[in-house]
Amino acid sequence: MMDKITMPVLMVDEDKCQRNIRNMVQKAENAGVDFRPHFKTHQSLTIGRWFREKGVYKIAVSSFSMATRFAKDGWKDIMVAFPVNLREMSALNQLAGEIKLGILLSDPGVLPTLKTGLMHKTDFYIKLDVGNHRSGFIPDDLDGIKSLLDQAKNNPLLKFRGFVAHAGHTYQTRSLNEVHKIFREGSGRLEYVKNTFAAEYPDAIVSWGDTPTCSLMDEFETLDEIRPGNFVFYDLMQYHLASCDWDQIAMVLAAPVVSRQNARKEVVVYSGAVHLSKDYLELDGPVFGEVVRLTEKQWERFPEPVYVNRLSQEHGILKCPDEYFDTIMPGDLLGIIPVHSCLTADAVQKYYNLKTGEFFQ
Amino acid sequence: MMDKITMPVLMVDEDKCQRNIRNMVQKAENAGVDFRPHFKTHQSLTIGRWFREKGVYKIAVSSFSMATRFAKDGWKDIMVAFPVNLREMSALNQLAGEIKLGILLSDPGVLPTLKTGLMHKTDFYIKLDVGNHRSGFIPDDLDGIKSLLDQAKNNPLLKFRGFVAHAGHTYQTRSLNEVHKIFREGSGRLEYVKNTFAAEYPDAIVSWGDTPTCSLMDEFETLDEIRPGNFVFYDLMQYHLASCDWDQIAMVLAAPVVSRQNARKEVVVYSGAVHLSKDYLELDGPVFGEVVRLTEKQWERFPEPVYVNRLSQEHGILKCPDEYFDTIMPGDLLGIIPVHSCLTADAVQKYYNLKTGEFFQ
Repeated sequence: MMDKITMPVLMVDEDKCQRNIRNMVQKAENAGVDFRPHFKTHQSLTIGRWFREKGVYKIAVSSFSMATRFAKDGWKDIMVAFPVNLREMSALNQLAGEIKLGILLSDPGVLPTLKTGLMHKTDFYIKLDVGNHRSGFIPDDLDGIKSLLDQAKNNPLLKFRGFVAHAGHTYQTRSLNEVHKIFREGSGRLEYVKNTFAAEYPDAIVSWGDTPTCSLMDEFETLDEIRPGNFVFYDLMQYHLASCDWDQIAMVLAAPVVSRQNARKEVVVYSGAVHLSKDYLELDGPVFGEVVRLTEKQWERFPEPVYVNRLSQEHGILKCPDEYFDTIMPGDLLGIIPVHSCLTADAVQKYYNLKTGEFFQ
Repeated sequence: MMDKITMPVLMVDEDKCQRNIRNMVQKAENAGVDFRPHFKTHQSLTIGRWFREKGVYKIAVSSFSMATRFAKDGWKDIMVAFPVNLREMSALNQLAGEIKLGILLSDPGVLPTLKTGLMHKTDFYIKLDVGNHRSGFIPDDLDGIKSLLDQAKNNPLLKFRGFVAHAGHTYQTRSLNEVHKIFREGSGRLEYVKNTFAAEYPDAIVSWGDTPTCSLMDEFETLDEIRPGNFVFYDLMQYHLASCDWDQIAMVLAAPVVSRQNARKEVVVYSGAVHLSKDYLELDGPVFGEVVRLTEKQWERFPEPVYVNRLSQEHGILKCPDEYFDTIMPGDLLGIIPVHSCLTADAVQKYYNLKTGEFFQ
């Protein structure tokens, strides 16, 4: 059935993917928080519909292009969870005229341009930096936050909706305890900011994104909304963080075998940096993915793990124990569990459903 | 004029790019070797035509998809310089029926499928490993090479054209002397292999690819053909290898400024791992690109270099000295010299010509 796979493509185990979605929907429901999944991971209209079938109607994305694509597919409530790019005012206005659009402010310097350029009512959120140090206000900077809120009042089209944080530093943790600690500290600081402005903005929410926290915690206490994305597929990084079990990983990259180097017992696959990205894990040396054997509609690990050890533009190179090496031929298809499914999905952007044998987007 | 640039796009300085092409054409001519530029770097039909206007008619690419795209644009002599992917036999046959197609063999295990599947005359080259350890035969493995050549004789559609090497390990060098050494050793070994089979294959050529060698050397002695690709743009890695001068770098990524983090004097740009790739240089810490100021149709370095220090999916983060920090506003456009132009070009695939102000592909 896999004969029609000729090039690197993202192979999805639909049952696992649907289960990952179902579990997170259920978890949010049980915890009493809103669920706004981040679609930057899969960027797929089909997988988007799997969410919608489960009652999800609010999403986050990381660019106006993604927002436009999903809006065209019927999504009506989209947060662009990336500091607003003023150069895309035209796309912003187009979207804000059609759907409930949320934008992210992390720098008051954007307000003058929004004042002159914005043409429709737009929700906005303030980005808070809970330790990831990427963008946003430090929660202690109450003056800065107040100043932004006050300036924004001059623009009647801007409606403040709440505070947004992404605890990307959970990706550097080594234990559940550390994730707990990041969550407790971060959510505590968010709560403090929310309470500080509660008199004036009683409906402002606190929204939290990152797959390790959302996977490992069951209660979200003071949060109003969660925004995980990666959980839809998980990946090798999440597995090694213990943020998922092996059986929750729902996507592998199809990798055609093109050459065997007998003297080094290395196999060369057509799956390189342009497919997997150069994100790596340190596991006795850099690892760019774990190689799996494809069965009819599934995949299975080699008894002793086989990793992608080196990458160049289109080449992936894996060292194989002799007993597997001898079973692999050029023209075969292997699977690679990517280190970081978001980057791999963005790079390849073409899916194959292992259950139905159909390509999809 | 740059108002129409709203998102990350590859900005090309056409004059520098045309000069890079002209110089390499001239160098090959002076050295008396054939020139088969590798188009995997730019993958652009327009830039391809810039080569054609200078009399180039043979090219290398790294996939059948690229070969198909360039064949449709009139290219008639294309080597797919990547171990042949047997799963794409249909694309291979289509191309072989239309143009002079060259494929790469680095594993005799592909011959049975080529015997049954190939439908048109196809040139083939044997991949030799001159120290890069990616794919191909070790030059000492004369028995292996002979055995492949003998087996290939059973397929009248396969025509042997020569030996191909890619000295990718020049990218790890630190001096011109080391590049010289890799070239001398590698080309010497190639010559030995060629001579060994010269009685039976007097027309077999030796083809060599890698930008540092082709940039730094002027004489290619025993080679018949050079296949550099990166030189069309160069990049930060080539600059730090001293394989190019600063003024030869012909492409920067346009990066919209989306946020400033005043406390850390950091600027956040919309240009992340999905645009730049995670390739990095170690220059007092990892560097994912050098930031430049855009002038009307050019760019200029900051007096003290500013680097992209951290990356996530769409975010690039750069630390700025105070005096530049205060001049940068959200909505501004910065340029980023990528660490590795091939990966950045593959990821973004959309060009803007700084000279004409036009987008192109």
